[in-house]
Order: sequence, then C-alpha cells, then structure tokens
Amino acid sequence: MSLRIEHRIGKLAMQLALFEEEVEGESFPFALAEKSGYQFCKGKVGSMDAHKVVAAIETAAKKEQIIDGSFYRETHALYHAIIEAMQGVTRGQVQLGTVLRTVGLNFAIIRGKPYDNEREGEWIAVALYGTIGAPVRGLEHETLGLGINHI
Amino acid sequence: MSLRIEHRIGKLAMQLALFEEEVEGESFPFALAEKSGYQFCKGKVGSMDAHKVVAAIETAAKKEQIIDGSFYRETHALYHAIIEAMQGVTRGQVQLGTVLRTVGLNFAIIRGKPYDNEREGEWIAVALYGTIGAPVRGLEHETLGLGINHI
Amino acid sequence: MSLRIEHRIGKLAMQLALFEEEVEGESFPFALAEKSGYQFCKGKVGSMDAHKVVAAIETAAKKEQIIDGSFYRETHALYHAIIEAMQGVTRGQVQLGTVLRTVGLNFAIIRGKPYDNEREGEWIAVALYGTIGAPVRGLEHETLGLGINHI
Amino acid sequence: MSLRIEHRIGKLAMQLALFEEEVEGESFPFALAEKSGYQFCKGKVGSMDAHKVVAAIETAAKKEQIIDGSFYRETHALYHAIIEAMQGVTRGQVQLGTVLRTVGLNFAIIRGKPYDNEREGEWIAVALYGTIGAPVRGLEHETLGLGINHI
Amino acid sequence: MSLRIEHRIGKLAMQLALFEEEVEGESFPFALAEKSGYQFCKGKVGSMDAHKVVAAIETAAKKEQIIDGSFYRETHALYHAIIEAMQGVTRGQVQLGTVLRTVGLNFAIIRGKPYDNEREGEWIAVALYGTIGAPVRGLEHETLGLGINHI
Amino acid sequence: MSLRIEHRIGKLAMQLALFEEEVEGESFPFALAEKSGYQFCKGKVGSMDAHKVVAAIETAAKKEQIIDGSFYRETHALYHAIIEAMQGVTRGQVQLGTVLRTVGLNFAIIRGKPYDNEREGEWIAVALYGTIGAPVRGLEHETLGLGINHI
Repeated sequence: MSLRIEHRIGKLAMQLALFEEEVEGESFPFALAEKSGYQFCKGKVGSMDAHKVVAAIETAAKKEQIIDGSFYRETHALYHAIIEAMQGVTRGQVQLGTVLRTVGLNFAIIRGKPYDNEREGEWIAVALYGTIGAPVRGLEHETLGLGINHI
Repeated sequence: MSLRIEHRIGKLAMQLALFEEEVEGESFPFALAEKSGYQFCKGKVGSMDAHKVVAAIETAAKKEQIIDGSFYRETHALYHAIIEAMQGVTRGQVQLGTVLRTVGLNFAIIRGKPYDNEREGEWIAVALYGTIGAPVRGLEHETLGLGINHI
Repeated sequence: MSLRIEHRIGKLAMQLALFEEEVEGESFPFALAEKSGYQFCKGKVGSMDAHKVVAAIETAAKKEQIIDGSFYRETHALYHAIIEAMQGVTRGQVQLGTVLRTVGLNFAIIRGKPYDNEREGEWIAVALYGTIGAPVRGLEHETLGLGINHI
Repeated sequence: MSLRIEHRIGKLAMQLALFEEEVEGESFPFALAEKSGYQFCKGKVGSMDAHKVVAAIETAAKKEQIIDGSFYRETHALYHAIIEAMQGVTRGQVQLGTVLRTVGLNFAIIRGKPYDNEREGEWIAVALYGTIGAPVRGLEHETLGLGINHI
Repeated sequence: MSLRIEHRIGKLAMQLALFEEEVEGESFPFALAEKSGYQFCKGKVGSMDAHKVVAAIETAAKKEQIIDGSFYRETHALYHAIIEAMQGVTRGQVQLGTVLRTVGLNFAIIRGKPYDNEREGEWIAVALYGTIGAPVRGLEHETLGLGINHI
Repeated sequence: MSLRIEHRIGKLAMQLALFEEEVEGESFPFALAEKSGYQFCKGKVGSMDAHKVVAAIETAAKKEQIIDGSFYRETHALYHAIIEAMQGVTRGQVQLGTVLRTVGLNFAIIRGKPYDNEREGEWIAVALYGTIGAPVRGLEHETLGLGINHI
C-alpha cells in the first residue's frame, strides 16, 4: 500500500487502544513516540448509551486539541470516524442498552498525515478496544473497531 | 474484566493480524508463543468479493486444523465470527465490489479458552487488518475488524 | 388483537410454509381449507442468489393469480412483503452467495382480508421456512421469515 | 437436509410460539411432547422497549433452566439467538419505541440436539410470534422471527 | 417512466419540502396548486428523538386529513413511507439522539394518483428536508429523504 | 441554520437533480447560475448494479473536474457522499439487482463553500433522483437521496 509503513495511522491507533499499562512487559507503541507529526490521545469510557461513548470521544478530542471543536468541518470528520469505529464494536446495529448490552472501551484518537503525498493532507483515526456484553460483570467478550476519515 | 489479561483472545488475534514481518523492529506477539493451549494461524486475502474473503478464512481454518470442518457446529461458529469481523471492515454493508470497493487483508484466527472458568470452554476469534478502497492502487485507507464466538 | 383469530394471515402463511407432506402424521393447516375468502399458494426455491428467491416467489404469485402482475401496485405490495420475509431469513444483510451462504426454502403466499373491519381491505403475507448455511450439504440450520403488507 | 425431520428445532420452536391454547381445535405441537431430550419453555412479552423483550426471554430461559445463567457461554449463545429472532420481527432496524412502534409477542425457547451426528451437540432456538404496530390497540399486524445458535 | 410527468408525486413532495417562504424569489411549487386531485400538507419538526419525528408527521397527516387515522391500512402505508424517508435522512441507522445527533426538518406529505392507469390507485409520498448534526447550533449539514408507498 | 440560505449546497444539488429540461415551464435552478464559486455537473445513469451507479458518478466528477481523481482524499470524500445518497435511494440495503430491482437516476454533484465561515472550507453534495423498481418498464416509483461530505 502507498501508506508509508511507519505512518499507518489505523494500525497505530489500534495499538494504542490495545495497550494497557498494567500489563507486564507490554511496551508503549514505539512508533508513535517517534512521530512528532502525529497528535494523539487516549481515554476510557464505559456505558450502556451509545451517545455517551460518542460524547466521551468527542470531548477528549477537543480537550486534547486533536480537533478544533469550533469548526463543524473537524467535528464532522471525527463524528463519522467514531460511528464507523462503533460499527466494528457493535457489528450490525449501533445500539447498546436498547438491545440490553453494555461496553467498556479504551479509545485512541490520532491525527496526522499518513500518506507519502503531502497533498493528501491530514486524516483522523479512532480506534476502540474493550468488552461488550450483558449488563452483568463477566458476561462479556472483547470487541474493537476502527474509523478513519480525512479531516 | 474476568478475562485473564494474558488470555485476551481478541487482543491477541488483533495483534497477530497487525503484525508484519517486514516491519523492522516489530516483534511477533510474544504472548501467543507462550500459550501452548491456543491454536492459531495467519493468512492474507485480497478480493472485491466478500464471499472470497469468507472462503479464504474458512479454508485456512480447516487446513490449519483450527476447526474441524466435518462438523457444522464448528463451521457455524467460525462463519459468524468472520461475518462480525467483516462488519468492522465494511462498516455498514458487508459489501465490497457491489459498491465498487476492494480489500487487501491480513487475517488471524485463534481458538482457545480465554476465561478463567474452565467450563466457559473454547472460543474462536477472527481478526482482520488491511486496506479498503477503490479498485485503484493507492486509493485506500486502513480497516480492521474482530469477531468472537463460542465454539 | 383485533385480527379475527381464525383470520390470522401471518400465522396461516407460516403454518403453510412449515407444512411438509412427507412428514407422517402432519395435517394440512386446517384453517386455510375452510376459508374460501383466502387465496394462497405454496412453492419451493433453493438458491445462492437472493434475487432468484424474489423472482421465484413473484412468479408463483402471478402464475397462481394471487396478484395481478399487470399492476405495479400489487407487485409493489408483494415485493416489500418478500423483502421483509427475507430479512427474517437472512437476519441482518439480505445477502446469500455474496457472503458465501445458500438457502433452501418453502414459501407460502396468502392474500385476503384479515381484519374484522371490511374497510381495512386486502393484505398479503409471505412466509418462508427452510435452511440456510454454507454451500455444502448438511452445513446448515433452519431459518424463517414473514412479511405482511396491505395490497 | 441432514436434520432429522422429527428433530427440527426451529420448526418446533415456531409451532410452539404459534400455538394458542384459546384457539379451538388447535392441538399442542405433538412432536415436542414426545421428545424427552428437548427442553423448552414458552412465555409472553409486550413492550415498546427492545431491551425488555430481550430481558423477558433471558429471564424465562434461566428460570426454566433452559440455560445456566452462571455461564457466559450459554448467555452468549442465547443472546445472539434472541437478536436474530428480533431481526425477523423488526425487519431492518432492531428498534421498537425509538421508531414509534410496539410489540406483543409469544416466545418459545427450545434446547436440544437436532442433528443426527451426536457430535454436533446442543443448539438453541428462539421463536417469536405476535403483533407489531403503532402504540394504539388494533393498529398492528402479525410478525415473527427465529434465531438458532449452537450452545 | 410511465408516471405522468406532471404527476410525479415524489418530485412534488420534495419540491414542497425544499420550499421556504422566507427565501426571496422562491415560488411555491406551481404544479401542486394546479392539481386539485392531490391532497398535501406541510410542516416542521425538530427533535433528537426519531419517534417524535414519526409522531409529528403522523399527527399532521391525520389532522390535515391526508389519511384516515381510524384505519390501520392507511396508518400502515404512511408509517412505512415515513421510515423510508428517515432512512435517507439518517443514512444507515434510523437513530438520532441515541448516536448523539439531532434533526430540524421540513416535511411534506402528498396523496394522490400518480400513474396514468386509474387502477394503480392512490399512493402516498413523504419528503423530508432540513439539517442533521451535533446537538449544537451550527454543527450540522443538510439532509433529506423520500418515502413512497401505495395506500 | 448557519448555512447561508443562498448557499445551501444540498438543496441546490437536489433541485439540480430534480430539474428536467423536457418539462415545460420548469426553469433551471436559478441560484446555481449566480454562484460562480460553486462547481457542479449533472448526469444520468441506469443500472441494476450499484457499483455502476457509483462508477458513473465518480467518472463524471473527475471528467468535469469537480474532484481531482489523482488524490485519494477527494475520491474518499466523494465516495462516502455517493454511498450516503444511495442509502436514501435504496432505503435499507445498498443493493439493486441482487434483490431484483433496478434504478434510472439523474445525478447532480456540487462542490463549494456552503458555510459563512471561510475556514469551514469546501464540501461536496451528491443528489440522486429517479425511479426504482422491478426490472420491467413501468413497475417502478420515484426515489431520491442526498450525501454531503467535507472535502
């Protein structure tokens, strides 16, 4: 692919979402630290409401200045990336509590220029990793999703 | 979560799908090698036909003896895991060429017992990572998906 | 419900689709025979192409004069009933061979007036019952669906 | 099909859901009574909330000991069977009140071994039959769905 | 197409929904006024709840006597036209607030006979036009949809 | 809405798609001609293949220089706008021939700056209007859709 290997924004976002500090021997995705051109942040959200997942990611992206929330353009790009990532998480219906299930998710957001050609400009990736299941502790399995959009 | 951290079958499957030998400095997902109880395989498939992606993964799973293809039960579990992973990849419609797009994907399949409680039995995870885009080289971005099912 | 119990068009359609002559001791849905006001037909179709399932049902409905194919109105009502029934059969994506699966279905079509109030007019029900699975004999389970529309 | 005719778990579940005691001359699905190997239960639920339909079926399945709710494995198998049945009922969006409609449903759950080959193990079927429509009595038509999963 | 050009019910409905009195120089869709055979009404609704959009359109249709709400038949035809129009508006999931977005919509409903052949009878069209976006003023873009059904 | 009334890109795109030269008394959408800042083109496509509809619109957009096809960024923005417009046209499944239906569509593509704030940059709108129905002349009704994306 014409994406520079070391610039794969989706792979980096997913690695960041998968990374857990508390896991012994796991190292922070090395590539990110080296790429000063990439902006990123990480967070957690747990909810039975899909709209709260969307809101948590949007809030983090604005607070960490990954996007400028005063523009609709950037909000629009991020929103579609979030919904696409949620489709991977929910696999069919972007619904949680309304079909009696809940999620606990790590999220990672990365913004940068993943293509060799400078004119391809900036893109945004939203990666989600965590668990989905019944609203009872332990009745759950892992789930993840990725959304990518030009910004 | 009640999943043993080192047994997270979905995370391991995704890490395996993300792993590329040709990337310098990238190490094979360490955890897998240590877990003799897990069966896994990895492969690649590129197609404009969603059914060829399904077939490639099913064929690999049977050939590598991850599932016993002579049982419907195991085929059924794998099929649903594949379709769920494809929903993450396609984000809305499990369609490729019929909506003028194509994929190039790494896939990883893992089978094992991810839960502490032995009686939860075996589960299967299918992870996909690669690119999706127009049927023109370079007009593509990354995509991924994960499906998990009891088997 | 305000549907006259003995006039439940959906239940009758499903019973008709479930009925198999070759099953010993199984009797033809009694209610239908007694309701001269209802028109109905029954058929079979097996395919990996969703459009062939649609075509088989439309053809039977016209040939058996359940609908008058020279009107768009009646074709439109039947088409939506078929697609709704197929959603029950396919559960998520109205796709068969494109996601590597095939169906073998009995279908039943009934037309009549199921409501007490004469002015509710005629309705059409399409019921499907059979198997869905991999394109390999035996790797399949049962599936069914029902579509109902005013006509 | 390789399903033993008398063991068709989906057909039996649907017949059970369709069966109404109050309908004169209607006999209880005979086959079920003869199959001591099958576990089953029946219930009713009416709601504008999809999650309440899911909850009612899960609760009945646990209370009637069709599944062992202390395992995630069994809960997971049942959950997917319920959602698949709801896709037949809702035909497109697993939504009720959020799109201003309500359901009144009979449900039947059956667990057993429908395949000749003993090694195919146990499967679970969830059948739904009732009405869907506006939240006004009488403004409704019939609907049904079936979900089948290995357990 | 065999629809009489001047009778295109969908086009007229959309033109009516697009029409804004406050826009200087914009004239009321001329064709409608001339067609005494067509019944129509227009209204506005803004909400984060999809069911409120459905309710607002149903209420207007009954109040303006476009449909006779005492029949299920007419309510059923209208309901499906509304949901189809909402699919154009929402493009993928008929969800608003549950995925953190809101709409402000003009709606137009037209009932009449758009086909040359008198026997094709009456049809109903529901057109929606407005904005969709985040629940923050200005973070929105235009959206529209059309649903057509026989009645 | 904060969209300048005379700059509503979606409304203009829809008006352009609705406009038919052959209809007596119908005037070309006036606003477009006055807005030298907007680029637009119009075309027609009829097919049973969804991918041919996508291809026809993409080809026109490139040939008429609405987008620069040598960039993935612009192709990506256009592709999503097309798929969103097709969701309005197909209302549920972005499928045509695979569910035995065909379309005949006018399409309009507009690119420009619809927001007062210059920094919101360029957006693209794809509007579709025509008929959908059985692959038999006359068995069809109108359909339309709109997709809008930042570019």
